[in-house]
Amino acid sequence: MAQARNRSRRGADLVVLGGRGARDRLIAGAVWLVGAGPGDPDLLTIKALKVLRTADVVVHDGLVSDEILALAPETARRISVAKRKSRHSYSQDEIKRMLTAFALVGLTVVRLKGGDPFIFGRGGEELEACREAGVACHVVPGVTAALAAAAGAGAPLTHRWSAQAVTFVTGHAASRKDGGDGEPDLDWESLARPNQTVVIYMGLSMAAPIAAHLMAAGRAGSVPALIVENASRADEQRVVSTLAGLAEAAATLSGPALLIVGEAMALAQAGEAADIATFAQGARV
Amino acid sequence: MAQARNRSRRGADLVVLGGRGARDRLIAGAVWLVGAGPGDPDLLTIKALKVLRTADVVVHDGLVSDEILALAPETARRISVAKRKSRHSYSQDEIKRMLTAFALVGLTVVRLKGGDPFIFGRGGEELEACREAGVACHVVPGVTAALAAAAGAGAPLTHRWSAQAVTFVTGHAASRKDGGDGEPDLDWESLARPNQTVVIYMGLSMAAPIAAHLMAAGRAGSVPALIVENASRADEQRVVSTLAGLAEAAATLSGPALLIVGEAMALAQAGEAADIATFAQGARV
Repeated sequence: MAQARNRSRRGADLVVLGGRGARDRLIAGAVWLVGAGPGDPDLLTIKALKVLRTADVVVHDGLVSDEILALAPETARRISVAKRKSRHSYSQDEIKRMLTAFALVGLTVVRLKGGDPFIFGRGGEELEACREAGVACHVVPGVTAALAAAAGAGAPLTHRWSAQAVTFVTGHAASRKDGGDGEPDLDWESLARPNQTVVIYMGLSMAAPIAAHLMAAGRAGSVPALIVENASRADEQRVVSTLAGLAEAAATLSGPALLIVGEAMALAQAGEAADIATFAQGARV
Repeated sequence: MAQARNRSRRGADLVVLGGRGARDRLIAGAVWLVGAGPGDPDLLTIKALKVLRTADVVVHDGLVSDEILALAPETARRISVAKRKSRHSYSQDEIKRMLTAFALVGLTVVRLKGGDPFIFGRGGEELEACREAGVACHVVPGVTAALAAAAGAGAPLTHRWSAQAVTFVTGHAASRKDGGDGEPDLDWESLARPNQTVVIYMGLSMAAPIAAHLMAAGRAGSVPALIVENASRADEQRVVSTLAGLAEAAATLSGPALLIVGEAMALAQAGEAADIATFAQGARV
Protein backbone atom coordinates (compact mmCIF):
# COMPACT_ATOMS: atom_id res chain seq x y z
CA MET A 1 0.00 0.00 0.00
CA ALA A 2 2.69 2.46 0.92
CA GLN A 3 4.22 2.70 -2.51
CA ALA A 4 6.69 5.59 -2.37
CA ARG A 5 7.69 7.64 -5.37
CA ASN A 6 10.25 10.35 -4.95
CA ARG A 7 9.79 12.97 -7.63
CA SER A 8 12.10 15.57 -6.18
CA ARG A 9 14.31 15.50 -9.29
CA ARG A 10 11.40 16.64 -11.37
CA GLY A 11 11.26 20.02 -9.68
CA ALA A 12 8.72 19.85 -6.90
CA ASP A 13 9.99 18.44 -3.63
CA LEU A 14 7.48 15.67 -3.30
CA VAL A 15 7.25 12.37 -1.56
CA VAL A 16 3.99 10.69 -2.44
CA LEU A 17 2.69 7.63 -0.70
CA GLY A 18 -0.40 5.70 -1.63
CA GLY A 19 -3.38 5.53 0.68
CA ARG A 20 -5.65 8.08 2.19
CA GLY A 21 -5.17 10.40 5.10
CA ALA A 22 -2.40 12.74 6.09
CA ARG A 23 -0.59 10.14 8.18
CA ASP A 24 0.12 8.10 5.09
CA ARG A 25 2.04 10.91 3.44
CA LEU A 26 5.50 12.08 4.37
CA ILE A 27 4.90 15.53 2.96
CA ALA A 28 1.27 16.48 3.03
CA GLY A 29 -0.27 18.93 0.66
CA ALA A 30 -3.28 20.94 1.63
CA VAL A 31 -6.06 23.01 0.19
CA TRP A 32 -6.57 26.52 1.51
CA LEU A 33 -9.95 28.05 0.75
CA VAL A 34 -9.05 31.71 0.89
CA GLY A 35 -11.36 34.71 0.75
CA ALA A 36 -9.82 37.33 -1.54
CA GLY A 37 -12.19 40.04 -0.34
CA PRO A 38 -14.33 42.29 -2.50
CA GLY A 39 -11.72 43.46 -5.00
CA ASP A 40 -9.49 46.16 -3.54
CA PRO A 41 -6.19 44.34 -2.85
CA ASP A 42 -5.92 46.32 0.40
CA LEU A 43 -9.04 44.51 1.59
CA LEU A 44 -7.22 41.19 1.61
CA THR A 45 -6.52 40.02 5.13
CA ILE A 46 -2.92 39.72 6.23
CA LYS A 47 -3.49 35.98 6.61
CA ALA A 48 -4.75 35.66 3.05
CA LEU A 49 -1.62 37.43 1.85
CA LYS A 50 0.64 35.16 3.90
CA VAL A 51 -1.06 32.00 2.66
CA LEU A 52 -1.06 33.21 -0.93
CA ARG A 53 2.69 33.74 -0.72
CA THR A 54 3.17 30.04 0.06
CA ALA A 55 1.07 28.75 -2.84
CA ASP A 56 2.32 26.16 -5.30
CA VAL A 57 -0.95 26.40 -7.22
CA VAL A 58 -3.57 29.15 -7.23
CA VAL A 59 -7.02 28.15 -8.48
CA HIS A 60 -9.09 31.30 -8.81
CA ASP A 61 -12.45 32.69 -9.84
CA GLY A 62 -12.99 35.37 -12.45
CA LEU A 63 -13.73 38.01 -9.83
CA VAL A 64 -10.20 37.86 -8.39
CA SER A 65 -8.16 40.73 -9.81
CA ASP A 66 -4.76 40.54 -11.51
CA GLU A 67 -3.33 42.74 -8.74
CA ILE A 68 -4.21 40.10 -6.17
CA LEU A 69 -2.99 37.20 -8.32
CA ALA A 70 0.33 39.02 -8.64
CA LEU A 71 0.85 38.55 -4.89
CA ALA A 72 1.37 34.79 -5.29
CA PRO A 73 4.93 33.57 -5.94
CA GLU A 74 6.05 34.02 -9.53
CA THR A 75 6.62 30.30 -9.76
CA ALA A 76 3.10 29.40 -8.62
CA ARG A 77 0.87 27.92 -11.28
CA ARG A 78 -2.27 30.02 -11.77
CA ILE A 79 -5.44 28.37 -13.00
CA SER A 80 -8.58 30.35 -13.75
CA VAL A 81 -11.80 28.47 -13.26
CA ALA A 82 -13.93 31.49 -14.12
CA LYS A 83 -17.32 30.72 -15.57
CA ARG A 84 -17.25 31.48 -19.28
CA LYS A 85 -20.17 31.56 -21.61
CA SER A 86 -18.38 30.98 -24.89
CA ARG A 87 -15.33 28.88 -24.04
CA HIS A 88 -14.83 25.73 -22.01
CA SER A 89 -15.21 26.30 -18.32
CA TYR A 90 -14.54 23.88 -15.52
CA SER A 91 -17.45 22.12 -13.90
CA GLN A 92 -17.69 22.13 -10.12
CA ASP A 93 -16.73 18.43 -10.15
CA GLU A 94 -13.63 19.17 -12.22
CA ILE A 95 -12.63 21.91 -9.79
CA LYS A 96 -13.00 19.56 -6.83
CA ARG A 97 -10.91 16.85 -8.52
CA MET A 98 -8.24 19.39 -9.44
CA LEU A 99 -7.95 20.72 -5.89
CA THR A 100 -7.66 17.31 -4.27
CA ALA A 101 -5.34 15.90 -6.93
CA PHE A 102 -2.81 18.71 -6.48
CA ALA A 103 -2.95 18.41 -2.70
CA LEU A 104 -2.52 14.63 -2.82
CA VAL A 105 0.79 15.04 -4.63
CA GLY A 106 2.00 17.30 -1.84
CA LEU A 107 1.29 20.75 -3.23
CA THR A 108 -0.05 23.74 -1.32
CA VAL A 109 -3.19 24.68 -3.20
CA VAL A 110 -4.77 28.08 -2.66
CA ARG A 111 -8.37 28.20 -3.84
CA LEU A 112 -8.90 31.93 -4.11
CA LYS A 113 -12.48 33.14 -4.09
CA GLY A 114 -13.97 36.61 -4.32
CA GLY A 115 -15.31 37.79 -0.96
CA ASP A 116 -15.61 35.08 1.67
CA PRO A 117 -15.40 31.37 0.79
CA PHE A 118 -18.48 30.50 2.85
CA ILE A 119 -20.86 33.22 1.61
CA PHE A 120 -22.19 32.12 -1.80
CA GLY A 121 -18.72 30.88 -2.74
CA ARG A 122 -19.51 27.15 -2.90
CA GLY A 123 -16.66 26.70 -0.44
CA GLY A 124 -18.68 24.15 1.51
CA GLU A 125 -18.79 21.81 -1.47
CA GLU A 126 -15.05 22.02 -2.04
CA LEU A 127 -14.37 21.47 1.65
CA GLU A 128 -16.55 18.35 1.58
CA ALA A 129 -14.61 17.06 -1.43
CA CYS A 130 -11.33 17.54 0.46
CA ARG A 131 -12.65 15.67 3.50
CA GLU A 132 -13.84 12.81 1.30
CA ALA A 133 -10.42 12.62 -0.35
CA GLY A 134 -8.55 12.76 2.97
CA VAL A 135 -6.99 16.11 2.12
CA ALA A 136 -6.40 18.74 4.81
CA CYS A 137 -8.52 21.80 4.11
CA HIS A 138 -8.17 25.15 5.88
CA VAL A 139 -10.40 28.17 5.46
CA VAL A 140 -9.33 31.81 5.59
CA PRO A 141 -12.34 34.11 5.90
CA GLY A 142 -12.57 37.27 3.83
CA VAL A 143 -14.46 40.53 3.64
CA THR A 144 -17.65 39.62 1.84
CA ALA A 145 -18.88 42.10 -0.76
CA ALA A 146 -21.87 43.26 1.29
CA LEU A 147 -19.57 44.66 3.97
CA ALA A 148 -17.50 46.58 1.45
CA ALA A 149 -20.58 47.88 -0.35
CA ALA A 150 -22.04 49.21 2.89
CA ALA A 151 -18.71 50.72 3.95
CA GLY A 152 -18.29 52.54 0.66
CA ALA A 153 -21.82 53.93 0.71
CA GLY A 154 -21.66 54.92 4.37
CA ALA A 155 -24.80 52.96 5.22
CA PRO A 156 -24.83 50.40 8.03
CA LEU A 157 -26.21 46.90 7.47
CA THR A 158 -27.53 46.89 11.02
CA HIS A 159 -28.71 50.02 12.78
CA ARG A 160 -30.09 50.44 16.25
CA TRP A 161 -33.77 50.81 15.47
CA SER A 162 -34.17 50.46 11.75
CA ALA A 163 -32.18 47.29 10.99
CA GLN A 164 -32.14 44.69 13.73
CA ALA A 165 -31.18 41.90 11.33
CA VAL A 166 -29.35 41.52 8.04
CA THR A 167 -29.94 38.67 5.60
CA PHE A 168 -27.78 37.65 2.65
CA VAL A 169 -29.46 35.82 -0.23
CA THR A 170 -28.55 35.28 -3.85
CA GLY A 171 -30.48 36.34 -6.93
CA HIS A 172 -29.37 33.10 -8.53
CA ALA A 173 -30.81 31.03 -5.67
CA ALA A 174 -30.99 27.57 -7.13
CA SER A 175 -34.21 25.78 -6.44
CA ARG A 176 -34.33 22.03 -6.39
CA LYS A 177 -37.34 22.22 -8.66
CA ASP A 178 -35.91 24.02 -11.63
CA GLY A 179 -32.23 23.13 -11.31
CA GLY A 180 -31.12 26.70 -10.82
CA ASP A 181 -32.63 28.38 -13.85
CA GLY A 182 -35.31 31.00 -13.78
CA GLU A 183 -36.34 33.36 -11.04
CA PRO A 184 -34.93 33.01 -7.54
CA ASP A 185 -37.08 30.90 -5.26
CA LEU A 186 -36.78 32.85 -2.00
CA ASP A 187 -38.81 33.19 1.15
CA TRP A 188 -40.34 36.51 0.13
CA GLU A 189 -42.58 36.77 3.17
CA SER A 190 -39.63 36.71 5.58
CA LEU A 191 -37.55 39.00 3.40
CA ALA A 192 -40.38 41.55 3.24
CA ARG A 193 -40.56 42.12 7.01
CA PRO A 194 -39.74 45.66 8.16
CA ASN A 195 -36.69 46.84 10.12
CA GLN A 196 -34.20 44.53 8.47
CA THR A 197 -31.62 44.79 5.71
CA VAL A 198 -31.71 42.33 2.82
CA VAL A 199 -28.63 41.96 0.63
CA ILE A 200 -29.09 40.21 -2.69
CA TYR A 201 -25.86 38.94 -4.23
CA MET A 202 -25.78 38.52 -8.00
CA GLY A 203 -29.21 40.05 -8.24
CA LEU A 204 -28.80 42.74 -10.89
CA SER A 205 -30.49 40.91 -13.76
CA MET A 206 -33.27 39.78 -11.42
CA ALA A 207 -33.92 43.22 -9.89
CA ALA A 208 -37.38 43.58 -11.44
CA PRO A 209 -38.86 40.27 -10.22
CA ILE A 210 -37.11 40.61 -6.84
CA ALA A 211 -38.61 44.05 -6.23
CA ALA A 212 -42.02 42.87 -7.41
CA HIS A 213 -41.95 39.84 -5.10
CA LEU A 214 -40.89 41.92 -2.09
CA MET A 215 -43.61 44.50 -2.69
CA ALA A 216 -46.23 41.79 -3.29
CA ALA A 217 -45.23 40.31 0.07
CA GLY A 218 -45.85 43.64 1.78
CA ARG A 219 -42.59 45.58 1.72
CA ALA A 220 -43.29 49.25 1.01
CA GLY A 221 -42.11 50.62 -2.33
CA SER A 222 -40.73 53.65 -0.46
CA VAL A 223 -38.13 51.58 1.44
CA PRO A 224 -34.64 52.83 0.55
CA ALA A 225 -32.50 50.67 -1.72
CA LEU A 226 -28.90 50.79 -2.82
CA ILE A 227 -27.17 49.11 -5.74
CA VAL A 228 -23.39 48.79 -5.66
CA GLU A 229 -21.46 47.63 -8.71
CA ASN A 230 -17.83 46.54 -8.31
CA ALA A 231 -17.78 47.30 -4.57
CA SER A 232 -14.37 48.54 -3.36
CA ARG A 233 -12.85 48.59 -6.86
CA ALA A 234 -11.64 51.68 -8.66
CA ASP A 235 -14.69 51.51 -10.91
CA GLU A 236 -17.21 51.18 -8.08
CA GLN A 237 -20.60 52.72 -8.84
CA ARG A 238 -23.36 53.31 -6.32
CA VAL A 239 -26.97 54.11 -7.15
CA VAL A 240 -29.38 55.14 -4.40
CA SER A 241 -33.02 54.37 -5.05
CA THR A 242 -36.11 52.87 -3.45
CA LEU A 243 -37.58 49.41 -3.69
CA ALA A 244 -40.15 50.73 -6.19
CA GLY A 245 -37.34 52.23 -8.28
CA LEU A 246 -34.99 49.27 -8.01
CA ALA A 247 -35.55 47.78 -11.46
CA GLU A 248 -35.07 51.12 -13.20
CA ALA A 249 -31.92 51.84 -11.19
CA ALA A 250 -30.55 48.38 -11.94
CA ALA A 251 -30.97 48.96 -15.66
CA THR A 252 -28.26 51.66 -15.49
CA LEU A 253 -25.59 49.15 -14.40
CA SER A 254 -24.16 46.00 -15.92
CA GLY A 255 -21.27 44.67 -13.81
CA PRO A 256 -21.23 42.39 -10.78
CA ALA A 257 -23.50 44.12 -8.31
CA LEU A 258 -25.27 43.83 -4.99
CA LEU A 259 -28.80 44.99 -4.28
CA ILE A 260 -29.38 46.17 -0.71
CA VAL A 261 -32.89 46.92 0.53
CA GLY A 262 -33.80 48.26 3.94
CA GLU A 263 -34.57 51.30 6.08
CA ALA A 264 -30.89 51.82 7.00
CA MET A 265 -30.05 52.45 3.33
CA ALA A 266 -31.51 55.92 3.89
CA LEU A 267 -27.95 56.78 5.00
CA ALA A 268 -26.38 55.60 1.73
CA GLN A 269 -24.52 58.05 -0.45
CA ALA A 270 -24.57 57.58 -4.21
CA GLY A 271 -21.53 58.16 -6.33
CA GLU A 272 -18.27 56.63 -7.41
CA ALA A 273 -15.43 55.05 -5.51
CA ALA A 274 -13.33 58.20 -5.79
CA ASP A 275 -15.83 60.17 -3.70
CA ILE A 276 -15.09 58.13 -0.63
CA ALA A 277 -11.83 56.28 -1.07
CA THR A 278 -9.64 59.22 -0.24
CA PHE A 279 -7.06 57.20 1.65
CA ALA A 280 -3.76 57.65 -0.10
CA GLN A 281 -1.15 58.20 2.58
CA GLY A 282 -0.30 55.49 5.06
CA ALA A 283 2.69 53.32 5.78
CA ARG A 284 3.65 50.47 3.53
CA VAL A 285 2.87 47.02 4.77
CA MET B 1 -16.46 83.46 12.07
CA ALA B 2 -13.16 82.19 10.76
CA GLN B 3 -11.22 82.57 13.95
CA ALA B 4 -7.87 80.90 13.34
CA ARG B 5 -5.75 79.40 16.05
CA ASN B 6 -2.41 77.94 15.19
CA ARG B 7 -1.43 75.35 17.74
CA SER B 8 1.50 73.90 15.88
CA ARG B 9 3.91 74.91 18.68
CA ARG B 10 1.99 72.73 21.09
CA GLY B 11 3.02 69.56 19.35
CA ALA B 12 0.34 68.59 16.89
CA ASP B 13 0.53 70.32 13.54
CA LEU B 14 -2.92 71.85 13.62
CA VAL B 15 -4.64 74.76 12.05
CA VAL B 16 -8.14 75.06 13.37
CA LEU B 17 -10.71 77.37 11.89
CA GLY B 18 -14.18 78.01 13.22
CA GLY B 19 -17.25 76.96 11.27
CA ARG B 20 -18.47 73.68 9.93
CA GLY B 21 -17.47 71.72 6.88
CA ALA B 22 -14.15 70.53 5.55
CA ARG B 23 -13.73 73.59 3.32
CA ASP B 24 -13.47 75.80 6.39
CA ARG B 25 -10.45 73.94 7.71
CA LEU B 26 -6.94 74.19 6.34
CA ILE B 27 -5.98 70.84 7.76
CA ALA B 28 -8.94 68.54 8.11
CA GLY B 29 -9.11 65.76 10.58
CA ALA B 30 -11.19 62.69 9.93
CA VAL B 31 -12.78 59.74 11.64
CA TRP B 32 -12.04 56.28 10.30
CA LEU B 33 -14.46 53.59 11.41
CA VAL B 34 -12.23 50.55 11.09
CA GLY B 35 -13.17 46.89 11.42
CA ALA B 36 -10.48 45.13 13.44
CA GLY B 37 -11.75 41.70 12.47
CA PRO B 38 -12.59 38.84 14.81
CA GLY B 39 -9.46 38.82 16.97
CA ASP B 40 -6.55 37.15 15.19
CA PRO B 41 -4.30 40.09 14.18
CA ASP B 42 -3.68 38.29 10.86
CA LEU B 43 -7.36 38.73 10.08
CA LEU B 44 -6.98 42.49 9.93
CA THR B 45 -7.19 43.76 6.39
CA ILE B 46 -4.14 45.41 4.89
CA LYS B 47 -6.15 48.62 4.65
CA ALA B 48 -7.02 48.52 8.35
CA LEU B 49 -3.34 48.12 9.14
CA LYS B 50 -2.38 51.03 6.89
CA VAL B 51 -5.01 53.33 8.39
CA LEU B 52 -4.14 52.29 11.93
CA ARG B 53 -0.52 53.24 11.29
CA THR B 54 -1.60 56.83 10.54
CA ALA B 55 -3.68 57.27 13.68
CA ASP B 56 -3.26 60.20 16.05
CA VAL B 57 -5.93 58.77 18.33
CA VAL B 58 -7.27 55.22 18.57
CA VAL B 59 -10.67 54.84 20.24
CA HIS B 60 -11.31 51.14 20.73
CA ASP B 61 -13.72 48.58 22.11
CA GLY B 62 -12.88 45.97 24.70
CA LEU B 63 -12.85 43.19 22.11
CA VAL B 64 -9.84 44.64 20.29
CA SER B 65 -6.70 42.82 21.40
CA ASP B 66 -3.47 44.34 22.69
CA GLU B 67 -1.64 42.80 19.73
CA ILE B 68 -3.76 44.85 17.34
CA LEU B 69 -3.50 48.03 19.39
CA ALA B 70 0.27 47.65 19.29
CA LEU B 71 0.13 48.19 15.51
CA ALA B 72 -0.79 51.87 15.94
CA PRO B 73 2.06 54.39 16.21
CA GLU B 74 3.70 54.48 19.64
CA THR B 75 2.80 58.14 19.87
CA ALA B 76 -0.90 57.59 19.19
CA ARG B 77 -3.22 58.16 22.10
CA ARG B 78 -5.22 55.02 22.91
CA ILE B 79 -8.62 55.35 24.54
CA SER B 80 -10.63 52.34 25.60
CA VAL B 81 -14.37 52.82 25.52
CA ALA B 82 -15.05 49.23 26.56
CA LYS B 83 -18.27 48.66 28.41
CA ARG B 84 -17.48 48.06 32.07
CA LYS B 85 -19.84 46.91 34.73
CA SER B 86 -18.06 48.22 37.79
CA ARG B 87 -16.17 51.31 36.63
CA HIS B 88 -17.16 54.35 34.63
CA SER B 89 -17.75 53.59 31.00
CA TYR B 90 -18.39 56.02 28.19
CA SER B 91 -21.93 56.47 26.96
CA GLN B 92 -22.56 56.31 23.23
CA ASP B 93 -23.12 60.09 23.24
CA GLU B 94 -19.76 60.66 24.93
CA ILE B 95 -18.07 58.45 22.33
CA LYS B 96 -19.65 60.42 19.49
CA ARG B 97 -18.59 63.75 21.00
CA MET B 98 -15.07 62.46 21.55
CA LEU B 99 -14.69 61.28 17.94
CA THR B 100 -15.94 64.50 16.39
CA ALA B 101 -14.05 66.74 18.80
CA PHE B 102 -10.71 65.11 18.00
CA ALA B 103 -11.38 65.26 14.26
CA LEU B 104 -12.44 68.91 14.41
CA VAL B 105 -9.03 69.87 15.82
CA GLY B 106 -7.38 68.17 12.86
CA LEU B 107 -6.53 64.76 14.24
CA THR B 108 -6.81 61.43 12.42
CA VAL B 109 -9.11 59.40 14.63
CA VAL B 110 -9.30 55.63 14.20
CA ARG B 111 -12.43 54.17 15.78
CA LEU B 112 -11.43 50.52 16.03
CA LYS B 113 -14.25 48.02 16.39
CA GLY B 114 -14.24 44.26 16.70
CA GLY B 115 -15.40 42.55 13.49
CA ASP B 116 -17.02 44.89 10.98
CA PRO B 117 -18.17 48.42 11.91
CA PHE B 118 -21.56 47.98 10.25
CA ILE B 119 -22.53 44.58 11.70
CA PHE B 120 -23.78 45.18 15.26
CA GLY B 121 -20.97 47.68 15.81
CA ARG B 122 -23.13 50.82 16.15
CA GLY B 123 -20.98 52.27 13.40
CA GLY B 124 -24.03 53.81 11.75
CA GLU B 125 -24.70 55.99 14.78
CA GLU B 126 -21.14 57.24 14.90
CA LEU B 127 -21.14 57.93 11.18
CA GLU B 128 -24.33 59.98 11.58
CA ALA B 129 -22.71 61.98 14.38
CA CYS B 130 -19.75 62.75 12.11
CA ARG B 131 -22.04 63.90 9.29
CA GLU B 132 -23.97 66.13 11.69
CA ALA B 133 -20.72 67.67 12.93
CA GLY B 134 -19.36 68.18 9.42
CA VAL B 135 -16.52 65.70 9.99
CA ALA B 136 -15.27 63.45 7.19
CA CYS B 137 -15.95 59.82 8.05
CA HIS B 138 -14.54 56.82 6.19
CA VAL B 139 -15.36 53.19 6.78
CA VAL B 140 -12.99 50.24 6.44
CA PRO B 141 -14.89 46.95 6.42
CA GLY B 142 -13.65 44.00 8.45
CA VAL B 143 -14.10 40.25 8.76
CA THR B 144 -17.17 39.92 10.94
CA ALA B 145 -17.02 37.21 13.61
CA ALA B 146 -19.55 34.94 11.89
CA LEU B 147 -17.23 34.48 8.92
CA ALA B 148 -14.29 33.57 11.15
CA ALA B 149 -16.39 31.22 13.27
CA ALA B 150 -17.60 29.36 10.19
CA ALA B 151 -14.10 29.22 8.70
CA GLY B 152 -12.62 27.77 11.89
CA ALA B 153 -15.33 25.14 12.21
CA GLY B 154 -15.22 24.20 8.55
CA ALA B 155 -18.94 24.77 8.10
CA PRO B 156 -20.28 27.07 5.38
CA LEU B 157 -22.83 29.77 6.18
CA THR B 158 -24.46 29.20 2.80
CA HIS B 159 -24.53 25.80 1.12
CA ARG B 160 -26.02 24.80 -2.20
CA TRP B 161 -29.18 23.06 -1.00
CA SER B 162 -29.23 23.33 2.75
CA ALA B 163 -28.56 27.03 3.35
CA GLN B 164 -29.84 29.38 0.68
CA ALA B 165 -29.76 32.37 3.03
CA VAL B 166 -27.85 33.50 6.10
CA THR B 167 -29.21 35.96 8.65
CA PHE B 168 -27.29 37.81 11.35
CA VAL B 169 -29.18 38.91 14.46
CA THR B 170 -28.15 39.85 17.97
CA GLY B 171 -29.15 38.21 21.21
CA HIS B 172 -29.22 41.65 22.75
CA ALA B 173 -31.64 42.92 20.10
CA ALA B 174 -32.98 46.10 21.58
CA SER B 175 -36.70 46.49 21.29
CA ARG B 176 -38.29 49.88 21.35
CA LYS B 177 -40.68 48.60 23.97
CA ASP B 178 -38.32 47.56 26.70
CA GLY B 179 -35.35 49.81 25.96
CA GLY B 180 -32.97 46.96 25.32
CA ASP B 181 -33.39 44.91 28.47
CA GLY B 182 -34.86 41.46 28.68
CA GLU B 183 -35.21 38.81 26.03
CA PRO B 184 -34.44 39.58 22.40
CA ASP B 185 -37.47 40.65 20.43
CA LEU B 186 -36.82 38.89 17.13
CA ASP B 187 -38.92 37.72 14.21
CA TRP B 188 -38.93 34.09 15.32
CA GLU B 189 -41.22 32.92 12.56
CA SER B 190 -38.83 34.05 9.83
CA LEU B 191 -35.79 32.78 11.71
CA ALA B 192 -37.39 29.36 12.14
CA ARG B 193 -37.76 28.68 8.40
CA PRO B 194 -35.78 25.70 7.08
CA ASN B 195 -32.77 25.74 4.75
CA GLN B 196 -31.18 28.85 6.16
CA THR B 197 -28.40 29.66 8.60
CA VAL B 198 -29.09 31.97 11.53
CA VAL B 199 -26.17 33.54 13.36
CA ILE B 200 -26.87 35.07 16.76
CA TYR B 201 -24.23 37.51 17.94
CA MET B 202 -23.86 38.03 21.68
CA GLY B 203 -26.40 35.30 22.32
CA LEU B 204 -24.68 33.04 24.82
CA SER B 205 -26.60 34.14 27.90
CA MET B 206 -29.86 34.06 25.92
CA ALA B 207 -29.31 30.60 24.40
CA ALA B 208 -32.16 28.98 26.32
CA PRO B 209 -34.93 31.43 25.35
CA ILE B 210 -33.57 31.72 21.79
CA ALA B 211 -33.71 27.94 21.28
CA ALA B 212 -37.15 27.76 22.89
CA HIS B 213 -38.52 30.52 20.65
CA LEU B 214 -37.09 28.94 17.48
CA MET B 215 -38.53 25.53 18.33
CA ALA B 216 -41.88 27.04 19.30
CA ALA B 217 -41.92 28.72 15.87
CA GLY B 218 -41.41 25.37 14.17
CA ARG B 219 -37.67 24.83 13.80
CA ALA B 220 -36.82 21.19 14.50
CA GLY B 221 -34.83 20.44 17.66
CA SER B 222 -32.63 18.15 15.57
CA VAL B 223 -31.25 21.01 13.43
CA PRO B 224 -27.47 21.22 13.88
CA ALA B 225 -26.08 24.08 15.94
CA LEU B 226 -22.61 25.38 16.62
CA ILE B 227 -21.33 27.66 19.36
CA VAL B 228 -18.01 29.41 18.84
CA GLU B 229 -16.34 31.29 21.67
CA ASN B 230 -13.49 33.69 20.88
CA ALA B 231 -13.57 32.93 17.15
CA SER B 232 -10.11 33.06 15.52
CA ARG B 233 -8.30 33.69 18.81
CA ALA B 234 -5.79 31.35 20.39
CA ASP B 235 -8.39 30.38 22.99
CA GLU B 236 -11.15 29.66 20.46
CA GLN B 237 -13.58 26.94 21.58
CA ARG B 238 -16.16 25.28 19.39
CA VAL B 239 -19.06 23.17 20.62
CA VAL B 240 -21.18 21.22 18.14
CA SER B 241 -24.74 20.55 19.22
CA THR B 242 -28.33 20.71 18.03
CA LEU B 243 -31.00 23.33 18.52
CA ALA B 244 -32.54 21.20 21.28
CA GLY B 245 -29.16 20.93 23.00
CA LEU B 246 -28.17 24.57 22.51
CA ALA B 247 -28.86 25.80 26.03
CA GLU B 248 -26.93 22.94 27.62
CA ALA B 249 -24.00 23.45 25.25
CA ALA B 250 -23.98 27.20 25.92
CA ALA B 251 -23.71 26.59 29.64
CA THR B 252 -20.21 25.13 29.10
CA LEU B 253 -18.87 28.44 27.77
CA SER B 254 -18.61 31.94 29.18
CA GLY B 255 -16.71 34.23 26.78
CA PRO B 256 -17.90 36.27 23.82
CA ALA B 257 -19.61 33.74 21.59
CA LEU B 258 -21.72 33.25 18.51
CA LEU B 259 -24.59 30.81 18.19
CA ILE B 260 -25.08 29.41 14.69
CA VAL B 261 -28.15 27.35 13.83
CA GLY B 262 -28.85 25.67 10.52
CA GLU B 263 -28.63 22.53 8.42
CA ALA B 264 -25.16 23.44 7.08
CA MET B 265 -23.73 23.27 10.60
CA ALA B 266 -23.79 19.49 10.13
CA LEU B 267 -20.34 20.04 8.60
CA ALA B 268 -18.97 21.81 11.69
CA GLN B 269 -16.08 20.32 13.59
CA ALA B 270 -15.87 20.82 17.34
CA GLY B 271 -12.62 21.52 19.10
CA GLU B 272 -10.11 24.21 19.82
CA ALA B 273 -8.35 26.68 17.63
CA ALA B 274 -5.18 24.61 17.57
CA ASP B 275 -6.92 21.76 15.77
CA ILE B 276 -7.41 23.84 12.68
CA ALA B 277 -5.10 26.83 12.76
CA THR B 278 -2.05 24.92 11.67
CA PHE B 279 -0.68 27.70 9.52
CA ALA B 280 2.71 28.64 10.87
CA GLN B 281 4.99 29.09 7.89
CA GLY B 282 4.47 31.87 5.39
CA ALA B 283 6.31 34.98 4.40
CA ARG B 284 6.33 38.03 6.57
CA VAL B 285 4.15 40.91 5.52
